[in-house]
Amino acid sequence: MKLDIRVVVMAGGSGTRFWPLSRGSRPKQFLPIAGERSMLEETVERLLPLVPARKIFTVADAAKTRTIRRLLPGFPARNLLVEPEGRNTAPSLVLATARIHLDNPEAVVVVLPSDHLIRPADLFRRQLEAGCRAAAERGVLVTFGIPPTFPSTGYGYIKAAAKPAGRVNGFPYHEVRSFEEKPPLERARRFVRAGTYTWNSGMFIWRADVFAGKLKRHSPEYAPGWDRMLAALRKDDRRAANAAFKTMPAKSIDYALMEKASGVLVLPARFGWSDVGAWSSLLDVWPRDERGNTARGEILALDASGNLIYNPGRFTALIGVDNLIVVETGDALLVCRRDQDQRVKDVLANLKRRKKGSRLHFPLF
Amino acid sequence: MKLDIRVVVMAGGSGTRFWPLSRGSRPKQFLPIAGERSMLEETVERLLPLVPARKIFTVADAAKTRTIRRLLPGFPARNLLVEPEGRNTAPSLVLATARIHLDNPEAVVVVLPSDHLIRPADLFRRQLEAGCRAAAERGVLVTFGIPPTFPSTGYGYIKAAAKPAGRVNGFPYHEVRSFEEKPPLERARRFVRAGTYTWNSGMFIWRADVFAGKLKRHSPEYAPGWDRMLAALRKDDRRAANAAFKTMPAKSIDYALMEKASGVLVLPARFGWSDVGAWSSLLDVWPRDERGNTARGEILALDASGNLIYNPGRFTALIGVDNLIVVETGDALLVCRRDQDQRVKDVLANLKRRKKGSRLHFPLF
Repeated sequence: MKLDIRVVVMAGGSGTRFWPLSRGSRPKQFLPIAGERSMLEETVERLLPLVPARKIFTVADAAKTRTIRRLLPGFPARNLLVEPEGRNTAPSLVLATARIHLDNPEAVVVVLPSDHLIRPADLFRRQLEAGCRAAAERGVLVTFGIPPTFPSTGYGYIKAAAKPAGRVNGFPYHEVRSFEEKPPLERARRFVRAGTYTWNSGMFIWRADVFAGKLKRHSPEYAPGWDRMLAALRKDDRRAANAAFKTMPAKSIDYALMEKASGVLVLPARFGWSDVGAWSSLLDVWPRDERGNTARGEILALDASGNLIYNPGRFTALIGVDNLIVVETGDALLVCRRDQDQRVKDVLANLKRRKKGSRLHFPLF
Repeated sequence: MKLDIRVVVMAGGSGTRFWPLSRGSRPKQFLPIAGERSMLEETVERLLPLVPARKIFTVADAAKTRTIRRLLPGFPARNLLVEPEGRNTAPSLVLATARIHLDNPEAVVVVLPSDHLIRPADLFRRQLEAGCRAAAERGVLVTFGIPPTFPSTGYGYIKAAAKPAGRVNGFPYHEVRSFEEKPPLERARRFVRAGTYTWNSGMFIWRADVFAGKLKRHSPEYAPGWDRMLAALRKDDRRAANAAFKTMPAKSIDYALMEKASGVLVLPARFGWSDVGAWSSLLDVWPRDERGNTARGEILALDASGNLIYNPGRFTALIGVDNLIVVETGDALLVCRRDQDQRVKDVLANLKRRKKGSRLHFPLF
C-alpha cells in the first residue's frame, strides 16, 4: 500500500526560555539555535526526502505565519494554516487534520513540533515511515516515545506494554497503557527504573479518517467542532472555519484525545532527540572544546570549563569561570548559572512588571 | 611666602588591566571608569581650585597628547609636554621640571599620576598645599605615602621614621628611611605590621631648583641631560630637547632619584586613594546594591551577589552567579572571576600572539 503522508508542523509556540535571544516575535523555532538555519527550516528540510513541500503544513497564529512565509518561501501559501486565536493544540489539530481530510480521508497525518532537534535525519525518516505504516494499516493513533536518559520532571511520560505488539520495517511498536503528566522527581525515577516508560515527544501520527472517528467516539465535545470545521473548509469559508475553531475547548491533544483513545501505539524513538528546552541543553548539541566549553562566536577560555557562550561574530574571553551560560544579543546580556537557566522566565516576568514607566528603551521581551 | 605651585600630570601610561574597555589607544586615564568623566579630567578638575590650568602640565607621548588635547581643550597647548619616546619616568620629569624651572626656579612642582582616584578633593588639596609648603620651605623632595590597608605585593613601600619630623597646616611629615620595592607577601605583612611603612603612590613634590640640585648631587648620570634639556627649552629648540631626552637613562624617578636623595619627606595621605588597578578595584568605588553588585548599565540580579558589570546603556540579567566581573564593549566580552582580574593581561598576550593570520576583524588590543 502506497502511503499518502502529510505533515503538520506545529509552529505556534512562544518559547521564552531562550531569552534574550528569543523574544515574543522570535520564538525558538525561528532561531538558528541548533544548526545553521532556524529550527523550523531544519524540521522541514529533514522531511523533504520523504514528504514533498506541497504535503507539509504549518499551524501558527497570523503573526508567526508571516515569519513562516519568509522562512519557507517555496511553500504553498494555503499550506500555512492560521489559528484565529491561541486555544492549545486540540483545535489546531482539528483544523489541520480536517484540512487534510478534505484532500484524502485516508491520508496519514504526521504531527511534529517545529522546535525539536532530531539526528540523524535518515534514521528519523525511516522510523517515521514505519510509524506511518503502522498508523495506516492498523487504523490507530501512533505516537513516538523518547527513551528517557534521566528522570526528567519536565516531560510527560507514556507507559507502554513491556512486549512489542508488532514490528514495522524492523521497528517495534508497543500498546500504550497510559499517558502520565509531568511527574514529581520520585515518580519520574520510578518511571525510568521501570523501563516501560518513554517521554511524550509531542509527535503523533494518524490517518485523517481514524482521527475523526476516534475524536467523535472518545472526545465527543469536539465532534461538533470537527463537523463545522470540515464543512467550512469544504466551502473555503474562512470566517466559518474561524468560528468553528473558537467553539472548541482549549485543550491539548494529549488531554483531549490521546489519553482517552483506545489502541494507541507508541514507537520508542531510535533517533537522537532533544527538545532544546533551555540554553543548557545546547551543551549537548554544539561541539565542545576539551574543557567542555561551547560557543557561538570566538572564545578564549583561561581555566574555564563547562560554559556555553552565545556571542556570534564577536570575541569573548573567559577567565576562571565554570558552568556559566552567557548570551549577548546587542541590547541585552544574560549571565546565568548553567543549572538555573530555567529561571530566565523570572527575568522576563520581572521585565514585564517593570514595563510601566520603565527606563528600558527596547522591547526586551 | 606665596607658593608658585605647578602640577605635572603623568598621562603616558598604557594600562591594559581594564581590557576590553582599555585598549592601546584608550588607556585607563582616558576612560570614565571611576566617575562621569575620564580619570585625567577628574585629576585636573580636582586641582583647579588650587592651581590654574595655565600652571598644569601633562606629559605623554605624541599620540596620547592628541587625546589629552581633546579632553582638556581649555589647556594651553604648550603645557602638553610630549615624550619623544618611552623612557620611563625620570627623563619625563627632567623635561617637565626643566620646563617649569625656566619660568621660575623656585616654583613648586607637584607630580601626579593621571589615573588615580582621590576623595575628597578638598582634603586632598589641603594636604597637597601642606606638602608644597614643606617642599618649598625645607628645600627637600616630598612624597605622599598611602597608609596600607592590606599587605599588597603590588606596590612599592616607603619606610619612614616613626615620629614626625614636623607638621604643616596640621599635617605631619616624616623623614624617609628607605624606599622598598614591591615585596613578597611575607615581607609585605611585616611592613604593614610595623606601622611605619606606607605605599609609594607616585605622587612627588619638589621645588624646581631643589630637584636640579638633588639630581646633580645624587644622580649625576642625569646631570648632562638636565643641562642640555634646560638649554634646549630656553632656546625653544624642540629637536635639541628631544635629543637631550633620548640621552638620559631610562629609569624610574624612584630609582633614579628618590631612593638616593637625602632628606626626603613623606606625608601619610589623609585622603582616600585608589590606583584603580584592575576591574575588581571598582567594587570599592562604584555604588553597590544590597547584595554587593555594582554596575554601569541596568542590571537585574536574581540570587546574584558581589558582581561587577560594565554594560552601559544596556540591560544585563544575572542569575545565580557570584563574584564575577562582566565587561561588554560591543566587540568584546569579558567574563572573569573577580579574584582573577589580573589575568586579563594573559588574554591580551594571547590576542597579540594570534594576530598573524587571525580571523579577528577588529583591533581588540
